[in-house]
Amino acid sequence: MVNIGVIGFGYWGPNLVRNFTHHPKCSVKRIADQSEARLATAQKMYPFIQTTTDMYRVLDDPGIQGVVIATPINTHYRIAKEALLRGKHVLVEKPLTNSRAHALELIKIAKEKDLRLMVDHIYLYNGAIRKIKEIISKGELGKIQYFDSIRVNLGLIQNDSNVLWDLAVHDLSILNFLVEEKPSSLIATGVSHTMNNIENIAYITLNYSSGMITHINCSWISPVKIRMILIGGTKKMIVYNDVEPTEKVKLYDTNYQIIEREKTLVDYRIGDIYIPKFDQTEALKNVADDFIDSIIEGREPFSNGKSAYDTIDILEAAQESIKKNGKEVFLDGNSQYREPKAAGKERKARNKRSAA
Amino acid sequence: MVNIGVIGFGYWGPNLVRNFTHHPKCSVKRIADQSEARLATAQKMYPFIQTTTDMYRVLDDPGIQGVVIATPINTHYRIAKEALLRGKHVLVEKPLTNSRAHALELIKIAKEKDLRLMVDHIYLYNGAIRKIKEIISKGELGKIQYFDSIRVNLGLIQNDSNVLWDLAVHDLSILNFLVEEKPSSLIATGVSHTMNNIENIAYITLNYSSGMITHINCSWISPVKIRMILIGGTKKMIVYNDVEPTEKVKLYDTNYQIIEREKTLVDYRIGDIYIPKFDQTEALKNVADDFIDSIIEGREPFSNGKSAYDTIDILEAAQESIKKNGKEVFLDGNSQYREPKAAGKERKARNKRSAA
Amino acid sequence: MVNIGVIGFGYWGPNLVRNFTHHPKCSVKRIADQSEARLATAQKMYPFIQTTTDMYRVLDDPGIQGVVIATPINTHYRIAKEALLRGKHVLVEKPLTNSRAHALELIKIAKEKDLRLMVDHIYLYNGAIRKIKEIISKGELGKIQYFDSIRVNLGLIQNDSNVLWDLAVHDLSILNFLVEEKPSSLIATGVSHTMNNIENIAYITLNYSSGMITHINCSWISPVKIRMILIGGTKKMIVYNDVEPTEKVKLYDTNYQIIEREKTLVDYRIGDIYIPKFDQTEALKNVADDFIDSIIEGREPFSNGKSAYDTIDILEAAQESIKKNGKEVFLDGNSQYREPKAAGKERKARNKRSAA
Amino acid sequence: MVNIGVIGFGYWGPNLVRNFTHHPKCSVKRIADQSEARLATAQKMYPFIQTTTDMYRVLDDPGIQGVVIATPINTHYRIAKEALLRGKHVLVEKPLTNSRAHALELIKIAKEKDLRLMVDHIYLYNGAIRKIKEIISKGELGKIQYFDSIRVNLGLIQNDSNVLWDLAVHDLSILNFLVEEKPSSLIATGVSHTMNNIENIAYITLNYSSGMITHINCSWISPVKIRMILIGGTKKMIVYNDVEPTEKVKLYDTNYQIIEREKTLVDYRIGDIYIPKFDQTEALKNVADDFIDSIIEGREPFSNGKSAYDTIDILEAAQESIKKNGKEVFLDGNSQYREPKAAGKERKARNKRSAA
Repeated sequence: MVNIGVIGFGYWGPNLVRNFTHHPKCSVKRIADQSEARLATAQKMYPFIQTTTDMYRVLDDPGIQGVVIATPINTHYRIAKEALLRGKHVLVEKPLTNSRAHALELIKIAKEKDLRLMVDHIYLYNGAIRKIKEIISKGELGKIQYFDSIRVNLGLIQNDSNVLWDLAVHDLSILNFLVEEKPSSLIATGVSHTMNNIENIAYITLNYSSGMITHINCSWISPVKIRMILIGGTKKMIVYNDVEPTEKVKLYDTNYQIIEREKTLVDYRIGDIYIPKFDQTEALKNVADDFIDSIIEGREPFSNGKSAYDTIDILEAAQESIKKNGKEVFLDGNSQYREPKAAGKERKARNKRSAA
Repeated sequence: MVNIGVIGFGYWGPNLVRNFTHHPKCSVKRIADQSEARLATAQKMYPFIQTTTDMYRVLDDPGIQGVVIATPINTHYRIAKEALLRGKHVLVEKPLTNSRAHALELIKIAKEKDLRLMVDHIYLYNGAIRKIKEIISKGELGKIQYFDSIRVNLGLIQNDSNVLWDLAVHDLSILNFLVEEKPSSLIATGVSHTMNNIENIAYITLNYSSGMITHINCSWISPVKIRMILIGGTKKMIVYNDVEPTEKVKLYDTNYQIIEREKTLVDYRIGDIYIPKFDQTEALKNVADDFIDSIIEGREPFSNGKSAYDTIDILEAAQESIKKNGKEVFLDGNSQYREPKAAGKERKARNKRSAA
Repeated sequence: MVNIGVIGFGYWGPNLVRNFTHHPKCSVKRIADQSEARLATAQKMYPFIQTTTDMYRVLDDPGIQGVVIATPINTHYRIAKEALLRGKHVLVEKPLTNSRAHALELIKIAKEKDLRLMVDHIYLYNGAIRKIKEIISKGELGKIQYFDSIRVNLGLIQNDSNVLWDLAVHDLSILNFLVEEKPSSLIATGVSHTMNNIENIAYITLNYSSGMITHINCSWISPVKIRMILIGGTKKMIVYNDVEPTEKVKLYDTNYQIIEREKTLVDYRIGDIYIPKFDQTEALKNVADDFIDSIIEGREPFSNGKSAYDTIDILEAAQESIKKNGKEVFLDGNSQYREPKAAGKERKARNKRSAA
Repeated sequence: MVNIGVIGFGYWGPNLVRNFTHHPKCSVKRIADQSEARLATAQKMYPFIQTTTDMYRVLDDPGIQGVVIATPINTHYRIAKEALLRGKHVLVEKPLTNSRAHALELIKIAKEKDLRLMVDHIYLYNGAIRKIKEIISKGELGKIQYFDSIRVNLGLIQNDSNVLWDLAVHDLSILNFLVEEKPSSLIATGVSHTMNNIENIAYITLNYSSGMITHINCSWISPVKIRMILIGGTKKMIVYNDVEPTEKVKLYDTNYQIIEREKTLVDYRIGDIYIPKFDQTEALKNVADDFIDSIIEGREPFSNGKSAYDTIDILEAAQESIKKNGKEVFLDGNSQYREPKAAGKERKARNKRSAA
């Protein structure tokens, strides 16, 4: 049984607590939050979990092996670092940190102390996205030509980071998961209507040396919720519509061919559409499973430091581009991120012991 | 009765001929097209209209007062100029020309010769867009904060101009119609998958000194057709979904307020939604009406040279930005376009005579 | 070239004229309608077609081989009979007549005079329905268990026949086309809100000896347009949604199995969904083709007397059930309809001559 | 604090437990279920609640004031009776019982013992339905002319009662809530594909002396989930689409007028559409609130015995009609149900004491 503590019981914290509470190999021991009202709610729902306004009651508890952090973005780095330094495995809400430098520092500490560092990139654990990955991996789309995401709704305008760090972070984690090629440069534009320099609408174009293009449209102030990703390949195309209740993934047997003729350059082929069934398990349950199992088995979680870093790498570049009025920012592709080396077989055994 | 000739009977020409044929004050006298097959179709449908592969049979016919041009974009300028120089009133498919310079030249000739020069910006004659204009004019949206359009489908990839000149031209004509403030600069990105330097996917961000932002997403290679414009104001927001069969315009009584508090900066208000009824007349019928009436009454059509120029002004800047890898291009706002002066009352009388 | 005359230029007539006008082997010679205003419209659109308020100008014209009838339902029989008696081939809007007896009489006359008698059951010529027929014919659905149609909208309340004769006629023609088994009895209910004994809302349940069930829900006073048919089989199920712009036919790899266990009787299997591509040709073009070709080739049209009779057979029974407050009406399944015998090879030749 | 016990932790039980657990004035003391596996799940989620396979541990617990029953339909009567006889207030999943007689008996016992008897007609506590009630109560629809419900999906085929008792029960409780006029007769049809005489598809037509009509279409074997109710009035019409994520209620300013003219009997008016905002509280939370408050305040719950009886009254008649092959069954409108008389002011005081 792995004992965990949860820091932050605001918007997302209750979902994390619910999933970890139901997990057969895990027990939620403590919840910390600055709000007494939220803790009262937690106590009503989970009278068997201890609550506190002092997060150090969680961090310093020797009976806790894993800490789950669901606090505002600009506090992630500080809390995660404190947890790692106290020898706790850590799961952090997305994004891991608000800068590349902080992400690298956390990754380094986790590696040195042989601890799990996981970020809640929830779409990597989503049945629809995994089905799309499967389709792409089989080569059904052919060469990917574009990835176009629209992610807008009436969202919680945040005051510590812009809409990209809140919404585009999902698209970038999905993009990094689905597409192997890395972008060579980006251009981002946006606007802040809240007079605080925090963009509430933003757009990113990512350029690739192969001719692929990615575009992300994010907004916190749309009256309708749109969650749609179009992925076009030379053979087939996919539409992922996450607000559709059941038919979220559609595979279109549609493409075009360049024909060298006098006037007409291209020819279309429109065929059948296929809506694959996929695993409907709640993604957050899979996240909880991976975190607990990675602790028990002493292995990297799937959504690990590299996944966190690669996403933040683009987010930081996008922020730079917006602040420079849409200047092109080059992504060297030579990520500063380095895979932590495996710490040997002893690690697994030790982790299994500590998690028992 | 106004006699007109139509040049171009490809994709859009038949719709124009159908509408002008039904018009009570107009008679379609001749159709010109380079394709014998298309002319055969025209003859079967309209045995009473003369067809020809030689467009000069239309241009030189003294019995024709108005020429309607529905040919590829890069031929618009040349054909329209020939028609104007022969004293014909001219209606050109959008966009009027593929450059500011050509547009200005046509406008100048039309003014000098006191002829109508109209561009088929069809959305300016669309009941839904006119209803949105009415809502905005009444101040119901408050101050407009964003205009976000997605216009993608599996389109006819063209080989003489990119997707912006084909699709964004609609959004820009709508934008210019609905929003008074003019953009101060733009950044456009895009990609050509057809190896011919003609972008088939492109994105434009338009910046405004007020803090408003416009974004346009165009693609010829989407497996699904999306035609959606979101317009957000400080009081209410509109979604215009043109693929929705009946409920195209939705007015959301939704907004947010900036509240100066410690952590939460904004507060949302979500209210009722209102789907206004609007005039269902086929927009192209209204276009035909305006062209014929403008000839008979000797007045400017609604979608006139200024409308054409203002749209091309942004398209040309967007093309420049794409070719410079997304460099910001400034729009001086001091349009080179000048209103043609009214040529006096005699004009009306003369036109009425010639149209009779 | 087959010359035809059209009687009735109201709601549907213009669509018929448009399709026959475009037909390469057919010429529309005359249009008759009681309304001068409608004839004026026809003349504007088709100046080369002669118009008249006297339908006998059509019926008595020796140059006309085929008559197309698009008048109110209660006039179909009389006009069609007059046309047949004058030796014209006849295409009648659905339903052929408003009684079995009249249908049989027309069929008999046509057979005796070796003339084509066709009813415009347009869905039999619709790409989506033909694709569904193909799927069913291959056995993909297994044994059909239900056919459930909802066909409601704000319709033209008619004063000569109820909503079943206007709307359910479509469903019944589709049902007869798709499903081989014939219903053994029916129960119909409905209401007339217009105080004239003409039901504007009605429901039919059709029972089958195999355990299959069909249900049809029709209304002229729904604020929304629904055109949905669900067809469930023991292996797969189909949803045909005709208001969906492109994805009209969905094949669900979904079924259930009866399992003999203590408490749970059934087990579900939900699989992929498949949206087949189908022929997008306008159905009415196919109707026109079949009528003209059946005249030229001297063969039965696909939507022939039998198709007309089998539909009317159920409609008349449904009307009887409604009038008896939902009493069960038995359908003997031994249709009084008898296939006209082929009139031999001479017929073909003769028809080819007359159509030339 | 009201202590409750829950009997049945299958499909719906967990939702009930979750809502009662969160309720500030209530404590869930015991859960009973026949399945050890389900109880293990309950214990993992709620370690502070006692679980048992013996429902008498709940029924006989003197510390429990209210019993919530979420077991198969054919057990409702027996369990509820045992609970009432032991002096417990009772909330039963819909429908209250599977016969009028059993419902009347429970109502009588509850009245005699001055106990609350509530049925979980959840839609009576649903924000959308309450908004519709408000619109109707204001007279906005005018005189109601039809109520047409489609409630189909791939459902849990049950083996103790047919699809009407599972699905139509919702429509009937909504109908009874929204519409004052009571039906005078009904005709129901249906089919059992499971060879056990339990209909899995069924249809009901309800007739009214005013000319109103109600129709309900229920199926457990539809590949798609449809939850749509159309309500038409002489002034306006409503569409309630429960599968729509946000825009569930649409009010159409649409109607028709009977005009006495030669041929055209009616004239349509199609106006704006209005999508009202409504309370988004989870309906089951409102159910829990009403049950707990009715116990504390010693008052009738909103969804009380009368609501339960009136629904069962129609269900039993519908079942009779189906079994008689669609024979019309008359509903006398003189419900055998009698309002329990208020037991005086002492009751309230006593209940408050016992609930304290």
